[in-house]
Amino acid sequence: MSNRPSPPIVPTMHDHTWLIEQPNFNPDTFKAYEGLFTLGSPALHLRGSLEQLIPDHPQDTIYERRAANVTSEKFRHNVTKLGTYVPTVYADHPTLNVQLVNLPSPLGLDVCCNNNTLQPGTPAISRDTRTLDLRRAVLSRCVHWHVGKTNLRLTFERFVSRTRPGLIAQRLSIESDQPIDLQLSATIDARVTTNGYDHFSALDWTTTTNPSNATTLALNLTLDSGQSVHYTSALRTQAQPTRASAADRLGSITTNIHVAPDQPAVIEKLTIIHASNKPHPAPARDTLNTSFDDLLAEHTAAWAEAWNTCDVHIEGDAQAQQAARAALFHLLRTHPHTDAAAIDAKGYAGEAYWGRFFWDTEMYLLPFFLYTQPQHARDLVMFRIHTLPGARANATRKGQPGARFAWESDCQGIECCPNWQYADHEIHVTADVVFGFQHYALAAADDDFLDTHARDTILDVARYFLDRVDFRAGDNRPHLLGVMGPDEYTPISSNNAFTNRLVSRALALAAHAAEQNKTPDLDAQHLHSIARQLPIPNNGDLILQCDEWPLMAEPHFDTTWHDRSRTFASQVPQEKLYRTRCLKQADVLMLMALLPHEFTDAQVHAAWNEYLPYTTHDSSLSAGAHMLVASRLGLADHAWNFWNMGSRLDLDVEHGGAAEGIHIAGAGAIWQMIVLGFAGLKTAIETTSLTFTPRLPKQWTRLRFPLAWRTTRIMVDLDHAALSVQHLAGTALSVTVHAKQHTLNPGQTHTWRS
Amino acid sequence: MSNRPSPPIVPTMHDHTWLIEQPNFNPDTFKAYEGLFTLGSPALHLRGSLEQLIPDHPQDTIYERRAANVTSEKFRHNVTKLGTYVPTVYADHPTLNVQLVNLPSPLGLDVCCNNNTLQPGTPAISRDTRTLDLRRAVLSRCVHWHVGKTNLRLTFERFVSRTRPGLIAQRLSIESDQPIDLQLSATIDARVTTNGYDHFSALDWTTTTNPSNATTLALNLTLDSGQSVHYTSALRTQAQPTRASAADRLGSITTNIHVAPDQPAVIEKLTIIHASNKPHPAPARDTLNTSFDDLLAEHTAAWAEAWNTCDVHIEGDAQAQQAARAALFHLLRTHPHTDAAAIDAKGYAGEAYWGRFFWDTEMYLLPFFLYTQPQHARDLVMFRIHTLPGARANATRKGQPGARFAWESDCQGIECCPNWQYADHEIHVTADVVFGFQHYALAAADDDFLDTHARDTILDVARYFLDRVDFRAGDNRPHLLGVMGPDEYTPISSNNAFTNRLVSRALALAAHAAEQNKTPDLDAQHLHSIARQLPIPNNGDLILQCDEWPLMAEPHFDTTWHDRSRTFASQVPQEKLYRTRCLKQADVLMLMALLPHEFTDAQVHAAWNEYLPYTTHDSSLSAGAHMLVASRLGLADHAWNFWNMGSRLDLDVEHGGAAEGIHIAGAGAIWQMIVLGFAGLKTAIETTSLTFTPRLPKQWTRLRFPLAWRTTRIMVDLDHAALSVQHLAGTALSVTVHAKQHTLNPGQTHTWRS
Repeated sequence: MSNRPSPPIVPTMHDHTWLIEQPNFNPDTFKAYEGLFTLGSPALHLRGSLEQLIPDHPQDTIYERRAANVTSEKFRHNVTKLGTYVPTVYADHPTLNVQLVNLPSPLGLDVCCNNNTLQPGTPAISRDTRTLDLRRAVLSRCVHWHVGKTNLRLTFERFVSRTRPGLIAQRLSIESDQPIDLQLSATIDARVTTNGYDHFSALDWTTTTNPSNATTLALNLTLDSGQSVHYTSALRTQAQPTRASAADRLGSITTNIHVAPDQPAVIEKLTIIHASNKPHPAPARDTLNTSFDDLLAEHTAAWAEAWNTCDVHIEGDAQAQQAARAALFHLLRTHPHTDAAAIDAKGYAGEAYWGRFFWDTEMYLLPFFLYTQPQHARDLVMFRIHTLPGARANATRKGQPGARFAWESDCQGIECCPNWQYADHEIHVTADVVFGFQHYALAAADDDFLDTHARDTILDVARYFLDRVDFRAGDNRPHLLGVMGPDEYTPISSNNAFTNRLVSRALALAAHAAEQNKTPDLDAQHLHSIARQLPIPNNGDLILQCDEWPLMAEPHFDTTWHDRSRTFASQVPQEKLYRTRCLKQADVLMLMALLPHEFTDAQVHAAWNEYLPYTTHDSSLSAGAHMLVASRLGLADHAWNFWNMGSRLDLDVEHGGAAEGIHIAGAGAIWQMIVLGFAGLKTAIETTSLTFTPRLPKQWTRLRFPLAWRTTRIMVDLDHAALSVQHLAGTALSVTVHAKQHTLNPGQTHTWRS
Repeated sequence: MSNRPSPPIVPTMHDHTWLIEQPNFNPDTFKAYEGLFTLGSPALHLRGSLEQLIPDHPQDTIYERRAANVTSEKFRHNVTKLGTYVPTVYADHPTLNVQLVNLPSPLGLDVCCNNNTLQPGTPAISRDTRTLDLRRAVLSRCVHWHVGKTNLRLTFERFVSRTRPGLIAQRLSIESDQPIDLQLSATIDARVTTNGYDHFSALDWTTTTNPSNATTLALNLTLDSGQSVHYTSALRTQAQPTRASAADRLGSITTNIHVAPDQPAVIEKLTIIHASNKPHPAPARDTLNTSFDDLLAEHTAAWAEAWNTCDVHIEGDAQAQQAARAALFHLLRTHPHTDAAAIDAKGYAGEAYWGRFFWDTEMYLLPFFLYTQPQHARDLVMFRIHTLPGARANATRKGQPGARFAWESDCQGIECCPNWQYADHEIHVTADVVFGFQHYALAAADDDFLDTHARDTILDVARYFLDRVDFRAGDNRPHLLGVMGPDEYTPISSNNAFTNRLVSRALALAAHAAEQNKTPDLDAQHLHSIARQLPIPNNGDLILQCDEWPLMAEPHFDTTWHDRSRTFASQVPQEKLYRTRCLKQADVLMLMALLPHEFTDAQVHAAWNEYLPYTTHDSSLSAGAHMLVASRLGLADHAWNFWNMGSRLDLDVEHGGAAEGIHIAGAGAIWQMIVLGFAGLKTAIETTSLTFTPRLPKQWTRLRFPLAWRTTRIMVDLDHAALSVQHLAGTALSVTVHAKQHTLNPGQTHTWRS
């Protein structure tokens, strides 16, 4: 490597639309930035913790889940929470079931000077700001540190390589206005737990001193699951000797550095984390000898390629532009580029929800990938097919036939959620999986998919639902009783409209598969008949959320919801939610957002008028669906309000933001609000012909984004006067905008004027 | 003490109606006997474990309650489970909430001979039988042990003194056909946990050698709750020196004993356990110097006195007689003789249900005490009044006014049950508490009770229910929505008949109290109005369990309940229970058993015909209520079958019996089946005039029991020809039998012929 320090990569001229800036260290908002600044690659994710531990915030406090409180989680770690996650590395907690393991932190870079230690949040630091560059996926930090009369300027940079699986690259540049000697310690810190639980059963440390002065520190970590995870860390300095040592749970490479006004120091720390059950190969052997700048160059090139598939360009609204980019950044970051795992509920940025996979996959995440990176959408649906044995096991464990997809799935598809209440009753997830298959097959034009890869799953899902359907005395019509729809404030209800409609669609697909495949135990006619007969309760044009809707109590929000800045659920007993017409999100509107073409405007209006007054939007998943329905109804002000409600979940650091992890489903919803809502794209579920009904908000002047549609790639560009579509790749394409159809040939651009 | 060994107290001529005998040690049934043989006094309870540990059954295995399984408990300890419980000694488990602490075992008496250790279940033992004498509350054990050519006969006896709080007395008599030297070790063994959790934060041991050769071993145990519990153990032998020692979690007093054919040895071990937060005083100082025989004499006298208040004498059915005596024994044993605690769900004989207090108190336990020992019935209702602050805290914690009694109460009344589902929804318990008050006031003729002690509780219960009542849009009638009735297989339903009726009664009582007390916030007319308007759903004569009953799915037991010897719930997924017409016990029949006078025969017949086919009797509480309804309907065969189903829960060692503790509510139900069912006593809720409608089963020839009725004591004696009542104490009394009234003066006996 070069002995000349390269300049810090923080650009002097920022493109602010790509940056998220954290002002000086503030304990009240730090944890939110820590989550928001999570960096990652398909193989590894790192929360945006500091390079130094924050005093008095140990990382082994126990997360408590009391029996009295199964539905209400209490998280610890007020100020900082280290988090290092490798998709597919899970272990079994004795009471919480399988959870994503929080691995040792590779971040530590401790700096000491004349017995003073660099300590975040202390008076010796006059500046401590950070910047996440979304475009390059680089986090940088600038610290002004005063030791006696010496003023030091430290610039930390880090990225998790998108090209070398499991590589974290860090660089520290130190400038000083006085000659000064520093001691530096680069650590691997295993003093962490997962929800307070220690999954580390053995830690074997190895230290190597290389002739090239790249001393390495290695950790072979064995988990209680039997999996092993290997760490190798190297520290590179300018010719100073380095020493590695390790004891118990902390390994370090230390060195002494001399910094003078004309002689800034640059230190590079590279760490590779590689798990034994690798869906991803270990990075090339030469990685630890490759320069930071070279690694960075290939990393940013890979990110540029990813951004090209999906970047949404918004003009006239810097805040919206930032929100969109932050969402896309985390969507691109979290996809595992394999079907051995999916994207967990907190986007590999925290331990809430234990790193498990939810229906978010099909409803909130899949559309983004379907219409930008269909090959990665395929990974997500193939994950469900690969976990069919787990889904079968879930059904068998309950004495039921077929397959029952988990409400909270691990990488094997096994249900990890407490049976009561979500896992037992929120059965729509099993139908949602099949909906995802169909959406993928249509959007990616993977015509054989349903009849080949997905066939067995579709048939097993039908077997489960045929058993799950109930009949009442004196009535030959099928019902789905004892169901929780997506609205989790009505836990056990009958004929939930969302559930019944999705199950009905899944059974209809299975009927088709049964016809094709001559299944002895599944009669296509019977499947069709059940699919057709499953009731969607209604009262004229009003679709009822469930049979019980008319009989529930009035919530009287005026007297029961005192503080509208907090959730309704936090202000009433849970059991009151369950007997009251209060909705976490409106199921019926969500169904209409998903399947707009199946409902008349009169039905959508009736549902909007009925449910909106009862909807608390306590769920972070609520805003997106409601924004789509408002857009369809032409309610621009409502649509705009829901956009604002849903677009800054993770950026709102004052209210916790991403402290416990990224609202990754919300990130998917942001993309949907822009593309399906404001640009008015009809999904492939609705139409085989690319169709837009643009409703650009008046606050924006221009919107531009690329799109994958079946076998073509296009660029969409709209303002208040026109929408144009540029054909980028693939075959000729019929496009309809404002009901005006045009066939677009490769290379062509066509413009529709409003 | 005498140097002459007194003869073992096991009588050569048994009165078998008072005895329960355990055949030779059998690991398959041992734990059931261990629970069944629990001895106790108001101050202390000891499971019937052996004096020696059973190898390979450690007492620190963790009880697991996984989040995935909150409603289904898994217990450990296959063969033996030590249990030592002091009512009011509870501590907080990090995930299970407050639990009754399993204290160190005082039972250990290890015997060693020529390096052979007496070990239960090994071939060197040719006999190991036990006998529980219910009348005297003494457990004895006979062991034939063969060491080389020497044949030893060991007789162990033990009782937990009813007169000296916290005293356990043990005696071991050893006979041998050869001269032999033995080593004996009497232990206090703290190697135990509570559900696998260690609540012991400090153990201080003290040993004292007394000149009188009564060496003592003392343990001062500090719990993590801050409570302390003091143990003192003394070992008395015939002049052999004794030595005490202790380390860590085990304390011992050891001695050497010579036994010759003409020289049997007798060893006495006395242990006093005394808790710092004593509702009971420590026993007199001279206790440890009092002879076993003297202590036994006062103990058996106290038990005789207790039996005199309640013994039920059954002729013609030895098995029924044994079942009745076993039930009464445990009812007498478990009452704490204080209002600082009540009787926990497992009768202080195990850690299932964590030693907590349920609605069993009012529904299953109170009647027995009301009609046999009204002063102890008063303790049970006063316990509720003393825990009013806890009940208020439960309501406050949910943002609700008034008082909300806990589904699982600790000694402070605090809710310890997971909110979802029982605690949140099984709100009838709060009304049941008020029902208990009324039952007590009527049965014990404590006329002022409701207006004095109970008043504030009654008013606070009303405040809670007025808030809990719901109104639906366009309907001015009150409803109780989101309720679980006693039938726990229908978790969230509307207008549960049992709940609404009990709440209605509680509100009517509160209206009376509001009239008397001019409560500014409670309007008596409003209370009356709500009480009157709470619906009891019905379809003609058929009272519906809840609004949803007609809409639930058919259970199809023929195809879903494969093995009728096991519960239905164990054979279907829990969620299926919740959407199906399957009842753990029939709520409506239970309501009719409680308030027979409020329902016409036509209504009872309709309910019986509707619900019985759907009732699984999965609950141990089911048989009793159904037996009472069958009796009322004159269905003698059904009544007899339910008697058989409910009377041997704890005696059925082949199916687990009392392994996890005594079914103490079932014990109360046994008394109710006999007295309210077969003898046909109407409760004081039904009538102020003592009334019998006897229906002696044909299998019995005679039934005789004492009774407390308001201010009088009587003896009831019936056979198939007549019923006679003997006036034992109190004022003149009107008695009605078979609708024939007679006034009975003190000392008189009157006979009614059938």
